Amino acid sequence: MSRVSLLSDLLSSLGARTWFGERAENQPVPVTELTALCAKLVRSKGEATGVRMASEILGGLRALDEAGTERFFRALAEEFSPEAPALKAAAEAYAKDPSPKTLSVLQKLAEPPRQELFRRLNLAPGGTAELVKLRERLLPLLKSDRETFAPVDLDFRHLFQSWFNRGFLVLRPIDWTTPANILEKIIRYEAVHAIDDWDALRDRLAPSDRRCFAFFHPSIPDDPLIFVEVALTRDIPASIGAVLAEDRAALPAHSTDTAVFYSISNCHKGLAGVSFGSFLIKQVASDLKDSLPNLKTFVTLSPVPGFAAWLKRLPEDVVEGFTPEEKAAIAIVADQGLAFDAEWAFETELAEEARDGLLSLAARYFLRAKRSDGQPVDPVARFHLGNGAILNRIMHLGDISPTGLSQAHGLMVNYLYDLARVEQRHEAYADGQEIAASRAVTSLLPAGAGPHSMKDVA
Amino acid sequence: MSRVSLLSDLLSSLGARTWFGERAENQPVPVTELTALCAKLVRSKGEATGVRMASEILGGLRALDEAGTERFFRALAEEFSPEAPALKAAAEAYAKDPSPKTLSVLQKLAEPPRQELFRRLNLAPGGTAELVKLRERLLPLLKSDRETFAPVDLDFRHLFQSWFNRGFLVLRPIDWTTPANILEKIIRYEAVHAIDDWDALRDRLAPSDRRCFAFFHPSIPDDPLIFVEVALTRDIPASIGAVLAEDRAALPAHSTDTAVFYSISNCHKGLAGVSFGSFLIKQVASDLKDSLPNLKTFVTLSPVPGFAAWLKRLPEDVVEGFTPEEKAAIAIVADQGLAFDAEWAFETELAEEARDGLLSLAARYFLRAKRSDGQPVDPVARFHLGNGAILNRIMHLGDISPTGLSQAHGLMVNYLYDLARVEQRHEAYADGQEIAASRAVTSLLPAGAGPHSMKDVA
Amino acid sequence: MSRVSLLSDLLSSLGARTWFGERAENQPVPVTELTALCAKLVRSKGEATGVRMASEILGGLRALDEAGTERFFRALAEEFSPEAPALKAAAEAYAKDPSPKTLSVLQKLAEPPRQELFRRLNLAPGGTAELVKLRERLLPLLKSDRETFAPVDLDFRHLFQSWFNRGFLVLRPIDWTTPANILEKIIRYEAVHAIDDWDALRDRLAPSDRRCFAFFHPSIPDDPLIFVEVALTRDIPASIGAVLAEDRAALPAHSTDTAVFYSISNCHKGLAGVSFGSFLIKQVASDLKDSLPNLKTFVTLSPVPGFAAWLKRLPEDVVEGFTPEEKAAIAIVADQGLAFDAEWAFETELAEEARDGLLSLAARYFLRAKRSDGQPVDPVARFHLGNGAILNRIMHLGDISPTGLSQAHGLMVNYLYDLARVEQRHEAYADGQEIAASRAVTSLLPAGAGPHSMKDVA
Amino acid sequence: MSRVSLLSDLLSSLGARTWFGERAENQPVPVTELTALCAKLVRSKGEATGVRMASEILGGLRALDEAGTERFFRALAEEFSPEAPALKAAAEAYAKDPSPKTLSVLQKLAEPPRQELFRRLNLAPGGTAELVKLRERLLPLLKSDRETFAPVDLDFRHLFQSWFNRGFLVLRPIDWTTPANILEKIIRYEAVHAIDDWDALRDRLAPSDRRCFAFFHPSIPDDPLIFVEVALTRDIPASIGAVLAEDRAALPAHSTDTAVFYSISNCHKGLAGVSFGSFLIKQVASDLKDSLPNLKTFVTLSPVPGFAAWLKRLPEDVVEGFTPEEKAAIAIVADQGLAFDAEWAFETELAEEARDGLLSLAARYFLRAKRSDGQPVDPVARFHLGNGAILNRIMHLGDISPTGLSQAHGLMVNYLYDLARVEQRHEAYADGQEIAASRAVTSLLPAGAGPHSMKDVA
Repeated sequence: MSRVSLLSDLLSSLGARTWFGERAENQPVPVTELTALCAKLVRSKGEATGVRMASEILGGLRALDEAGTERFFRALAEEFSPEAPALKAAAEAYAKDPSPKTLSVLQKLAEPPRQELFRRLNLAPGGTAELVKLRERLLPLLKSDRETFAPVDLDFRHLFQSWFNRGFLVLRPIDWTTPANILEKIIRYEAVHAIDDWDALRDRLAPSDRRCFAFFHPSIPDDPLIFVEVALTRDIPASIGAVLAEDRAALPAHSTDTAVFYSISNCHKGLAGVSFGSFLIKQVASDLKDSLPNLKTFVTLSPVPGFAAWLKRLPEDVVEGFTPEEKAAIAIVADQGLAFDAEWAFETELAEEARDGLLSLAARYFLRAKRSDGQPVDPVARFHLGNGAILNRIMHLGDISPTGLSQAHGLMVNYLYDLARVEQRHEAYADGQEIAASRAVTSLLPAGAGPHSMKDVA
Repeated sequence: MSRVSLLSDLLSSLGARTWFGERAENQPVPVTELTALCAKLVRSKGEATGVRMASEILGGLRALDEAGTERFFRALAEEFSPEAPALKAAAEAYAKDPSPKTLSVLQKLAEPPRQELFRRLNLAPGGTAELVKLRERLLPLLKSDRETFAPVDLDFRHLFQSWFNRGFLVLRPIDWTTPANILEKIIRYEAVHAIDDWDALRDRLAPSDRRCFAFFHPSIPDDPLIFVEVALTRDIPASIGAVLAEDRAALPAHSTDTAVFYSISNCHKGLAGVSFGSFLIKQVASDLKDSLPNLKTFVTLSPVPGFAAWLKRLPEDVVEGFTPEEKAAIAIVADQGLAFDAEWAFETELAEEARDGLLSLAARYFLRAKRSDGQPVDPVARFHLGNGAILNRIMHLGDISPTGLSQAHGLMVNYLYDLARVEQRHEAYADGQEIAASRAVTSLLPAGAGPHSMKDVA
Repeated sequence: MSRVSLLSDLLSSLGARTWFGERAENQPVPVTELTALCAKLVRSKGEATGVRMASEILGGLRALDEAGTERFFRALAEEFSPEAPALKAAAEAYAKDPSPKTLSVLQKLAEPPRQELFRRLNLAPGGTAELVKLRERLLPLLKSDRETFAPVDLDFRHLFQSWFNRGFLVLRPIDWTTPANILEKIIRYEAVHAIDDWDALRDRLAPSDRRCFAFFHPSIPDDPLIFVEVALTRDIPASIGAVLAEDRAALPAHSTDTAVFYSISNCHKGLAGVSFGSFLIKQVASDLKDSLPNLKTFVTLSPVPGFAAWLKRLPEDVVEGFTPEEKAAIAIVADQGLAFDAEWAFETELAEEARDGLLSLAARYFLRAKRSDGQPVDPVARFHLGNGAILNRIMHLGDISPTGLSQAHGLMVNYLYDLARVEQRHEAYADGQEIAASRAVTSLLPAGAGPHSMKDVA
Repeated sequence: MSRVSLLSDLLSSLGARTWFGERAENQPVPVTELTALCAKLVRSKGEATGVRMASEILGGLRALDEAGTERFFRALAEEFSPEAPALKAAAEAYAKDPSPKTLSVLQKLAEPPRQELFRRLNLAPGGTAELVKLRERLLPLLKSDRETFAPVDLDFRHLFQSWFNRGFLVLRPIDWTTPANILEKIIRYEAVHAIDDWDALRDRLAPSDRRCFAFFHPSIPDDPLIFVEVALTRDIPASIGAVLAEDRAALPAHSTDTAVFYSISNCHKGLAGVSFGSFLIKQVASDLKDSLPNLKTFVTLSPVPGFAAWLKRLPEDVVEGFTPEEKAAIAIVADQGLAFDAEWAFETELAEEARDGLLSLAARYFLRAKRSDGQPVDPVARFHLGNGAILNRIMHLGDISPTGLSQAHGLMVNYLYDLARVEQRHEAYADGQEIAASRAVTSLLPAGAGPHSMKDVA
């Protein structure tokens, strides 16, 4: 609110001419007028004028309905792209004579005017946050007509990668003394283990053995970009239920030895593809170690979102070659129809019967199943292994929530971050897609699994 | 310092492998190793690795001597430019078939890898400030070999214009409660009217009728980018001496009616060409008006740095056509040899005799003298008129310091910012180079000056 | 928490001898040991020792049950009072020869050692807040045995009046950006119109036409002492329901003209008798006027807590002399048995019938009914009139909540703060108990009410 | 300034009646009017009125000249003391019947109305700081007429001890990022080793091996109460010159092992007798140890202000019994006339000759010389030994500045704070005046010194 009022103050003190003239309240500005003003903004040299124009354009865009939004992005795609004839001439000139001079002309003409438009829209108070939201509205269109909209999206990403460079981000702890307007966003954005209300939030933040950290951008100080929730424990917990139990007793922080990263949430769809997660985990681990030297182990407690689906799409002949325990497990978990009321998990005997087979199947899933590009099938595994973590443990019945059962037949895993070795591991993974796993995990692989990858059929 | 220690903590907690191996202290890293690590950094996918590499490269660069620096920039120009063969092929493909696909390839290949290098160097703690300093070291080379180094400089500017976008800058007041480490920079950076020591600084900041404001970038929180010093007065002061007099009595702020912007200083050469001045003045004027509604007039008290030189290079036949007063004035100020001990200015009678002629010549200088591009000869005039200000008054004996006398024969001027009209004026100036001037100024023009521009011979 | 951990750090770094020796966890320290350590603390000269002793005593006191608490306070009353024989001798010496010297001895011996004890307990981290809570535990004992405990309470009050001097308090706005640990206390402490949950809290704090301010003591930075909730409105609202309606549309703050103080809550029973309310209202009104010059009217929207009870205890013969409308109103509201499901208020016709009589009775209640000390019967009226406010309006059906109906037959009132005149009015009230009331209120008095006070029988 | 303007805003918004009427500027308010308003303030019940009255009284007091100040304090002594007749009656009543009731009356009447006056003057913005300055003006009068003014001073001290309770003080680091308005006070208040200018200040604060900490009161946030300067070193330095040398190279903080407290300065004479020093040293030592676990030793580098004077006043017959080395040393240092150009200290041979004797004399001075109350003669020794420190080392030529030579013939000493043992040592000292000293110090005592104290003749 203060930013907006600041703007209106600024505008009124500047004499407050509006670009769109008088208009009945709630009457949106037509898209053609918006794009015309965008064109004027890109060409303008008047900097103070620019602030005003940017604000009015962003205001106009906020008011657009879905159809208007699509028309606007289409106009961005068509009218704010490089000018083909001029660029063609420059390309020919460079092709004929690749010199610094022809290169410079080519570069200048190859950059879409959209980028300059976005930079100038950023002049408006609150502009950065608005642009992130604007891209969020582009993403659905991208699915329906990639060819038209991908170039627009590329320009957003190009700018965001520059603006949201790790060097500009600020790490801040989130706790029970954090302002409420930020905390309500933590409730809203939590994507892994939902927070029901403010009491639940306090249980995540206030106890002496809980921590939370978020990255912020200085221009969006009251809205986190990504945050991670951490439980300080003695030993690695065997399930998420144990971590979130309402009636547990909190431990003094200095008596713990393990930091468990049990939830990482990206907050803005509009920043898709601009990644902070790896930096966040390592920075938080490093900061925690500094302030609590008693911490020895840094692990995640992570979901296995692709396991059940992968199991389902395994060709029959492949399953044929599995061990009897594996086949038994498949029979148990498959029998139960929709996984989310999977009764087997709550019947001790059945659950116990499925254990060895499930763990063995999971070992295949993580260590042998590969996408066509050679990477692991599991997206969370790709993220953490890519960060230099090691797959440390697979836990039977680690998450018996409906989501946990339907996605992963109840499995959870730990990825362990050994700060002294993440770099080498990262490189080993990046170079050779070497899956780093503990003995506890590799020993789950059945003898007959062999050394070869299983190409995934997805 | 805290950022650096933070870094070393981070590094040590990460296990602290160094890229350059053991090396005797103060033994600089060879340029070839630096550029090799730069190449590795651009290619690398490991984000945490990147932070470390960036820090070590920046450390290595800091230690380079002048010759090493030049070799490094030369390597940047040669080895981190677009790859000619690939780009050539892409240019030909685009020229043959200008489609989104060929365009996308062309764009990707046209961007110099230097830009990605700079973005990744920014990952290092303190990286943004380091990159600004790095560009500062490039600027002298630009003068000696523009062809080689201009493309490198272009990449710096391209990134800086994005990173130092007005939308990311923070305006902060500077006063006597500002931390000393920032204040010592104000002393160092003041470029217009030097500040001798801390007592002089307090005289500029502490009195009730003094204000100072600076723009900061969030990643460089203890080093201003640009600052402006303001005197609150009753009426527009007739000289800078009156503003800076040591023995003056301070006025209560709420009893003043005029804000005089008497000094604007850019702080970092490395940000040359990335302009903030216009935003700063308007924002400060707007903020001052909000907090002190009694302020009615916003003017600068500005030097006239080009006047004396222009007068000197006027062709004799042109001077021939001037009025007798003008010729007399020229005689008086020219007679005195080196302007900086210009005695005429301190002899009341002589000074009075020169007055009318000098003011008349100044009117020609501002209103008629034009560069080949049609803009005014005076650089300060170009800045303020371009911001939408009006040339409000020319003051005889406004600055009788050695600099004032040698550059401008003692003249100073006011540019007036009428916030309600700066936009229209800015546009009128941008479109038609219309010199906005008050009646007080235009009436100084001698009748015979005519409506036509005088092309400057410089 | 941070204060406490800071303490434990401090203690452990100091070598951490404990005064009470090893003790099974949760095993409270006996009262006799606590008072012995109190005695040691009062006598001790070692300042660092004092911090530790104070912390341990406060810890021990926290763990005492009710009986232990009483024993402790009894010990304070008996063992930490002035020593009678010595004081008696000093009194005799002074009575015989009242000189500076005998006076000084008398003063020294007359001050109970309890005061020094409290001052030294305040050395402990968090000590100030602990002492406030300690007094809260004394208050119930005061009711049962005033003679014993009143002197102890007097010492608390004496110190608190010095420590919580207005000159040390800090006024801070409370809004939706306030830390959650403070906001949860606002929910807990709200004493006038309860706040059900965090959504309700946001409705009180976040809208553009709502404000809240609290006084804090610097040593208790996360716990307010008193706070006031303000609604910005156009015109004075006719009921609390209109102010708190969930579906109302918020007004822009700069378009309002009235600030309504609709709830003032003291937060700590332990500070009973140490008053901040008057300062808070005037400071908030003054600050609001500064930041929103459009505000012209500052009123409370206040309950009338004593009205129904006063009406009930009126002698029959007095009621006999009332007007027919008044008698009718009494009949209507009295008929309904328990007031808190008072149906008459929800039957339009009946409610309308009661209006004139109730307003007339209320005018008698405010303007004529007096306690034996000559002050108005209504405690809220005493507070605001004593602050220099004027009784501005009496509103029929202003609060139809169960509380509003049972205490005040639905009446609410406005007290108006005319900042330019509160001082004179305060003095007129303090000197002559002159009840300042608007014409709108005085004109409600029936003609036969006469100029004389009605002595209240309570 | 902001506090003052805040006040004037507050006053003007309150309608701004002034108590002293119109008055020519710079025309001070007569003392009689000031005391009359003081009397009114003590009696008043109007709290908002009180703020205004307090401000005007403090303003009037600021303007008083010396004679007026004395008249004012005399009025405080005479007119704001307990009323003798009433107090006498209360004393008699208590003497006859010492009951809670008679005690309560006695206490109330024994408290001078001055205390309530001071508490109410504290209501004014900036009141706390003003009252501290007011007491500073009382102190000289105390010397000339103790009988009259001591009771007034007692009331100041009584209140200040309550208000400046350690529990209310805030410890803040002072460094080169501290606001300039605070730093200029550090320059002004430094009482031990003067700071010449801002460059010298930076040398004390900015290097990586320097620290400074101050206690602040929350109501005087820009003016420290006491501060300590610390050098981080390897080993204990042998002289102050080594610590303050301009050309020394700074050490990385984490490579040091010793924290040297080389300067402690009280900032306000008006707080004389309200001591913070002991808390400050222990808190700072504890905080340093927390953040730099490498620190093992905490020592002062202290002057020996009473040594030369004590030596001078030693009776001849006592000196007669000293060792030949001691007599030789006395001859050397006594020969030199005024100590402050004591040439012997700069002549290597002479200085060396004096060494053993001086150290031996110093050992007598610290370990044997006693005041009539049994405490050591040296005031700095009394302070540190009273805090629980141990006399660790005596350094020949530790301070060869004029002050060091004239006061202590060049000696400096270390007091060592062993945090784990300060409490026991404090108690041992407090109980039995046991002088804790290291073997290095006690071994300096000549064999013939014997176990007995030397009563000082001063």
